[in-house]
Amino acid sequence: MTQTRGIDVAVSTVILTLRRTEDGAAVLALPLVLRTREPFAGQWALPGGWLTAVESPVDAAARTLAETTGLTPSYLEQLYAFGAVDRSPTRVVSIVYWALLRQDDVDAQSAAHRASGRAPENVRWFDLDDLPPLAFDHRAIIDYALWRLRNKVGYSRVAHGFLPAEFTLADLREAYEAILGRQLDPANFRRQVESSGTLLPTDRFRTGSHRPARLYRYNTDVELADHGPLGPDETSTR
Amino acid sequence: MTQTRGIDVAVSTVILTLRRTEDGAAVLALPLVLRTREPFAGQWALPGGWLTAVESPVDAAARTLAETTGLTPSYLEQLYAFGAVDRSPTRVVSIVYWALLRQDDVDAQSAAHRASGRAPENVRWFDLDDLPPLAFDHRAIIDYALWRLRNKVGYSRVAHGFLPAEFTLADLREAYEAILGRQLDPANFRRQVESSGTLLPTDRFRTGSHRPARLYRYNTDVELADHGPLGPDETSTR
Repeated sequence: MTQTRGIDVAVSTVILTLRRTEDGAAVLALPLVLRTREPFAGQWALPGGWLTAVESPVDAAARTLAETTGLTPSYLEQLYAFGAVDRSPTRVVSIVYWALLRQDDVDAQSAAHRASGRAPENVRWFDLDDLPPLAFDHRAIIDYALWRLRNKVGYSRVAHGFLPAEFTLADLREAYEAILGRQLDPANFRRQVESSGTLLPTDRFRTGSHRPARLYRYNTDVELADHGPLGPDETSTR
Repeated sequence: MTQTRGIDVAVSTVILTLRRTEDGAAVLALPLVLRTREPFAGQWALPGGWLTAVESPVDAAARTLAETTGLTPSYLEQLYAFGAVDRSPTRVVSIVYWALLRQDDVDAQSAAHRASGRAPENVRWFDLDDLPPLAFDHRAIIDYALWRLRNKVGYSRVAHGFLPAEFTLADLREAYEAILGRQLDPANFRRQVESSGTLLPTDRFRTGSHRPARLYRYNTDVELADHGPLGPDETSTR
């Protein structure tokens, strides 16, 4: 068998946020880039680019994400390395990263990127339930990211990635509902999170058009997920 | 920044089994290959090789594993793609897979490999708590695999990979103890697994020098972990 040395390695990033639609619902959304070159010119793809010789994959993912979208998540987690022989017209292995971003951070970082004059015009946000046709196997990659996210909400504080430091139980339930794609019973949800020990009530309330709702924060004494023994070269976006 | 096209991509595999030592304890063990070429000639490394143009990474991992060790696990799970710039004297991205194998399968497959006359002589099994100095970042990769395994026993039937179809609660506890690296209280362990609904008692018992111990099997109605929506090109070793 040919000892191929030298395979094209790409990086791509799935950045998810929880967007509020005009009718008040919370939906998952992500940025896509309209491809201007073949293959798949005129189709939408995940933000990304080639891995260079002088960068780790996570650094390359962070760089290409920042160049296209202006987004700089504090942490990128490796999702999977996709390498099926026929996933691209030429042989490409794609190392894919993912992260969750709060909508207000997305808004602030996107605005700064536009103000810099370096923001490309071919980037747009799409709701996850209303995606256009996608280049390569990027649709399957997004489906896999969503599957991982749905699995993760059960055993980590992953939904926190969408929420500010303090939030109401309704905010948290809404994040879970958007991730899981189904309604949750408010009373059951409250019972489960209160018995889990992962939330701490604050003495602050959100007031507004509804009756005041208590604000909670995550109990950081309960370590639900960590990044493991991977060193900073593999995980840090610096 | 240089648009590097063509990076050396390697595959490696962490194959873990539960080995019984001469004093009767169960310990995790894995096969390593003594390197005969630079870099790191004379040091031990994970079984693996280069990704070729005509194979998916999982196929390349399965092929190189079979060539060196004769082992053919039914399923290889992708562990991580390691890509720090300084992890090798030349730039190499390694896509690492892992699997658990039962000791009797290891014995049978290793014997068949030796009988074939194609088994290399530079392969040896090591207990995980007694590893030699390792080439590249392979020590860190093994530590990461162990960390993932320890995390996984909590939310999947992963320990089952070490056990036959029917096993005693003591067998299962011993597998957990070897993975977690600590003793578990037998009565607490029994209570937890019995209340989890993941085990079904059979009407068979193991007899021997101790009092008869009931045999259990996994309740396959309880889906604790699946491979998600990844297609066969990404996961199957065929």
